[in-house]
Amino acid sequence: MAFVSFRRADGTASYGRIEGDRILDYGAAAGAPADLKAAIAAGTLARLDHHGELALADVTLLPVIPNPGKILCVGHNYESHRQETGRAKVDHPSIFTRFADTLVADGQPIMLPTVSSHLDFEGELAIVIGRGGRHITETDALDHIAGYACFNDASLRDWQWHTTQFIPGKNFPRTGAFGPALVTPDEAGELADVHVVTSLNGDVVQDQPIRDMIFPIPKIIAYVSAFTPLSSGDVIATGTPGGVGAKREPPLWMKAGDRVGVAIGPIGTLTNEIENERQTG
Amino acid sequence: MAFVSFRRADGTASYGRIEGDRILDYGAAAGAPADLKAAIAAGTLARLDHHGELALADVTLLPVIPNPGKILCVGHNYESHRQETGRAKVDHPSIFTRFADTLVADGQPIMLPTVSSHLDFEGELAIVIGRGGRHITETDALDHIAGYACFNDASLRDWQWHTTQFIPGKNFPRTGAFGPALVTPDEAGELADVHVVTSLNGDVVQDQPIRDMIFPIPKIIAYVSAFTPLSSGDVIATGTPGGVGAKREPPLWMKAGDRVGVAIGPIGTLTNEIENERQTG
Repeated sequence: MAFVSFRRADGTASYGRIEGDRILDYGAAAGAPADLKAAIAAGTLARLDHHGELALADVTLLPVIPNPGKILCVGHNYESHRQETGRAKVDHPSIFTRFADTLVADGQPIMLPTVSSHLDFEGELAIVIGRGGRHITETDALDHIAGYACFNDASLRDWQWHTTQFIPGKNFPRTGAFGPALVTPDEAGELADVHVVTSLNGDVVQDQPIRDMIFPIPKIIAYVSAFTPLSSGDVIATGTPGGVGAKREPPLWMKAGDRVGVAIGPIGTLTNEIENERQTG
Repeated sequence: MAFVSFRRADGTASYGRIEGDRILDYGAAAGAPADLKAAIAAGTLARLDHHGELALADVTLLPVIPNPGKILCVGHNYESHRQETGRAKVDHPSIFTRFADTLVADGQPIMLPTVSSHLDFEGELAIVIGRGGRHITETDALDHIAGYACFNDASLRDWQWHTTQFIPGKNFPRTGAFGPALVTPDEAGELADVHVVTSLNGDVVQDQPIRDMIFPIPKIIAYVSAFTPLSSGDVIATGTPGGVGAKREPPLWMKAGDRVGVAIGPIGTLTNEIENERQTG
């Protein structure tokens, strides 16, 4: 099954299940949890009733989870990317965070801020946490996943590298693309041989199988949940393969009008155009 | 004026203004904003009515803002601490983040987790944002401050240094002490010559004037708001002076039963005992 968060034509927010080119509107049903995160937390997602159907074409998608409590990102989790960035091998996943206001949905623009021109792509597989927990073991980790989605951890490289800490370059508004849908583990199937493929204006710029992760998903969940409690709807972006624009010669930066895609086999394709942000006071 | 968030004896949460050893209970007044963050956002904090008074001794303090949208922390912002950590000089503040579930109030225990014994103190001045904004200029920055509080950015050094990114060591639950009260800028007065003084079991371990910050408060607010919008109630911990336990010979780690204090002249004194966290599944 695949679930989306969306706005109806009248602007109201809802969520539902995708059926072909339709959405079963779960949020419209009487007594439904308030949003997709709440439905995941209630543990009732797979058996919720819907009230009405909408054409996918008639809604505006929201980020898969528009309001995650925590967004954690893994750095340098593919050997090809670790090598191109010249980072040392480490015994633990490198973890940084995003604020929820950095998220954008499939089809919505990624914003190039006024204060940087070094906007880079990072196609990634994102995990959405189902049942929360602390000190989750690697053995149990997969049972805590509600589903998967595509993620573009778009980064302002100059701001990311102002100091050793990545936070500034990873937290400009509307730079974390997250969509189109939450795909449940049974629908996703075995992901090891599935490739994360990023394309820029139609050219493939990153392409690597998920099995090449340095720290596989169970290890990431175990590590993260050892220091911070995970809750339903929390998001973990699992890292990007080699091929980022910053490490090309000359560097390849995304600019207004560019079209960036992240395709991950059964998880779907996330597409965003780049737009210049207008400075707000 | 000084404001606190607290729980009444019956367990309900509220907030109010300190008057000597009493609290004017703002949260109990008809039509009052839901919490201190909401009251700051409404811009009505200085002129709210109260309904009843409580003895300070009869309430349990909560973190100054229990539910900030964003907690940003500045690393290596005093030359003495930069030098002891061997970090390079940088042209911008080093920024990392905390989740809200890392906060604890004055008088509540800081938790030593089961998976580390390298718990270190970091006494700091925290800013609470009043009026939010993006691209706030250094000139305007002070107008965006609702007040100040003491902060202990307690850190699990081994987890902080697993990789280049500090997030894991800064995000264990109940390690960010934040209190006792929000002190408004007029009450705080000129802070340049005020010292941040950290003590452990009565011994002074950090002591440095706020004027020694490498990046002063207006610069921090301008830098942070250039990459992320700030909102009412957001918290910025402005960095710790030299003297941290990790850089002593031998290292000085906090352990269960220790009592750590952060005193900042007119901003008050934050006191916490260390307690062993019990592992939860």
